[in-house]
Amino acid sequence: MIAESGAARRGRFSTPHGAVETPAFIPVGTAGSVKGVTPTQLRETGAGMILANTYHLQLRPTPEVVHNLGGLHKFMGWDGPILTDSGGYQVFSLSSINKIDDNGVEFRSHIDGSLVRLDARIATDIQEKLGADVAMVLDQCPPLPCDARTIRVAVERSLRWASVCRDVHTRDDQALFGIVQGGLDADLRTHCAEELVRIGFEGYAIGGLSVGESHDEMIEILPTTTACLPVDRLRYLMGVGMPRDILAAVRAGVDLFDCVLPTRNGRNSYAFTATGPLRLRNEVHRLDDGPLEPGCDCETCRTFSRGYIRHLFNAGEMLGPTLTSIHNLRFYQRFMTRIRERIVDGTLDAIVEEFPIAGWVSKKDEDDG
Amino acid sequence: MIAESGAARRGRFSTPHGAVETPAFIPVGTAGSVKGVTPTQLRETGAGMILANTYHLQLRPTPEVVHNLGGLHKFMGWDGPILTDSGGYQVFSLSSINKIDDNGVEFRSHIDGSLVRLDARIATDIQEKLGADVAMVLDQCPPLPCDARTIRVAVERSLRWASVCRDVHTRDDQALFGIVQGGLDADLRTHCAEELVRIGFEGYAIGGLSVGESHDEMIEILPTTTACLPVDRLRYLMGVGMPRDILAAVRAGVDLFDCVLPTRNGRNSYAFTATGPLRLRNEVHRLDDGPLEPGCDCETCRTFSRGYIRHLFNAGEMLGPTLTSIHNLRFYQRFMTRIRERIVDGTLDAIVEEFPIAGWVSKKDEDDG
Repeated sequence: MIAESGAARRGRFSTPHGAVETPAFIPVGTAGSVKGVTPTQLRETGAGMILANTYHLQLRPTPEVVHNLGGLHKFMGWDGPILTDSGGYQVFSLSSINKIDDNGVEFRSHIDGSLVRLDARIATDIQEKLGADVAMVLDQCPPLPCDARTIRVAVERSLRWASVCRDVHTRDDQALFGIVQGGLDADLRTHCAEELVRIGFEGYAIGGLSVGESHDEMIEILPTTTACLPVDRLRYLMGVGMPRDILAAVRAGVDLFDCVLPTRNGRNSYAFTATGPLRLRNEVHRLDDGPLEPGCDCETCRTFSRGYIRHLFNAGEMLGPTLTSIHNLRFYQRFMTRIRERIVDGTLDAIVEEFPIAGWVSKKDEDDG
Repeated sequence: MIAESGAARRGRFSTPHGAVETPAFIPVGTAGSVKGVTPTQLRETGAGMILANTYHLQLRPTPEVVHNLGGLHKFMGWDGPILTDSGGYQVFSLSSINKIDDNGVEFRSHIDGSLVRLDARIATDIQEKLGADVAMVLDQCPPLPCDARTIRVAVERSLRWASVCRDVHTRDDQALFGIVQGGLDADLRTHCAEELVRIGFEGYAIGGLSVGESHDEMIEILPTTTACLPVDRLRYLMGVGMPRDILAAVRAGVDLFDCVLPTRNGRNSYAFTATGPLRLRNEVHRLDDGPLEPGCDCETCRTFSRGYIRHLFNAGEMLGPTLTSIHNLRFYQRFMTRIRERIVDGTLDAIVEEFPIAGWVSKKDEDDG
């Protein structure tokens, strides 16, 4: 821990591929590639750690291929820290489930329909083969809203799987993180967190959020959860999120975030700025010779006008998604840098003056002003 | 002229945005973007001059928008030399023609079906608004094979349009190139070249080739044409081509080439190498940890394996087309660099030992070995 400001923490997480300055945002490279962005461009956005999805890599090209090609770092050309999720979230959200029980899950591949098995042992083995710096336990993540019994079963199952993952995990150069489930139930969250801490992990994720609940519901459950976690371990809020979500979670003591928004929105011509979003296809940008965001130091903003980028989207040019993704990734990193600086300075509250978008709590920030 | 080797020439062409070392290959940025590649990446491939298509930019975003956004260099973020074609080739090959006569052509936009007019005056005006370093005269380019009368009419029409373009062209900071037409008829080529030289241009293009004729037919007509052109002016073979075409044309005294092959083939998982093409989707590359081309110094070959790039194409990741385009563009620039060096050394014939692909004269080089 480097500094604290209320519950917010400024820290540093060490991995065999370098340190991660926290609070940190980690871009998502689903299938072993942050979409449309080279590792060189990604590094220039200020990204430290990145995430790759075990589910996608398990199905294609398979963990064996990644392993044979030198492991995930060499495979992707990324020599910084990498985290892999366990594949559980995607199995439950993307695939057609054939069978699920306390031992694991059987699902059909979305690529070729073949029957695939995933359990705690397999998820750990796959992630050891991929060789990221951080692996995640297998968990079950029910979408919200959800009945109490399903949430309870998911918690018990996730705890059992977490214990197996801990037991079978062998790589010393790979951290293993537990995942707290429990929906919006404070007692279940507390129980799950305490049991995971009893098992003991190098870091703790908060899963099962940003899956259908409101912003306020999500933020309300966070302090209950973080309060149960050891202060000297990383806390990772999975799949989150919009700038306002990140800021609120940092205030609740969360250190790490991942989300597809910068790249997915970038591909859809949506640019993040401190004062709100831009829809680049809009006619209003046709003759605009200004950058996506005045003052931004990314390659896109240093080089190109809104008018040009609008043209790229209208003409269906690949460069439109790439340039907007680069800007959005840089926006997130600038935002996190300022969060870290302001925790040290004790001025975190004032960040909404610098990044008004981080103060927005309505759905309006999805629309173009 | 810096050196000669037989008819092959090693030269330098000066523009307001820097010099072009010839023989040179210029990548194509059809709609104001070399597909999938940023200007920074493009510069790293060694590209000097690039091309943008007047036809595409005329329809979208329109020359007025490009002009208002600071002209083509600022618009595209490319501070090196740029050449624009006249739009004629695309009008005749891509659009549905409504009316064509000696004054010009009326066609339907492939974007919105609207009726658009193009003539020598308009083509010159558009290119002055775009503001490239080199503009081309409007010409009519019949596909081959073609009857003698159509070729003759196209030559006379192109000469008349060239004369109008010369008369109405006003920008001192923009060179204007004439275009020799005449199909495979040596007398017509000679006549067209002589008349263009009489009008007087800063450079001369050879058009109407690589439009259906064989490699041998194309190469046979080149010396007749270049022999009629002034030795102190640039000679530009439009839309060509494969390495073997370029080498043969350099030997006939051609200085400049443009072609979509490096990027179009790159998007289709086809990588150029000195010893022949690779189809990256092929199963044979699945576990291949070597670079696309051993010894290549491009970012792609320095960083990624064939196995990874194959995975990107299989997973539909944008990065596959981008990385393969970067390699192919670098391949073409390395090829041109060696051609230039070998002209100076007097060893041009031996380049086929270094780049066997440049000696191939059959269609086989389109297939994977």
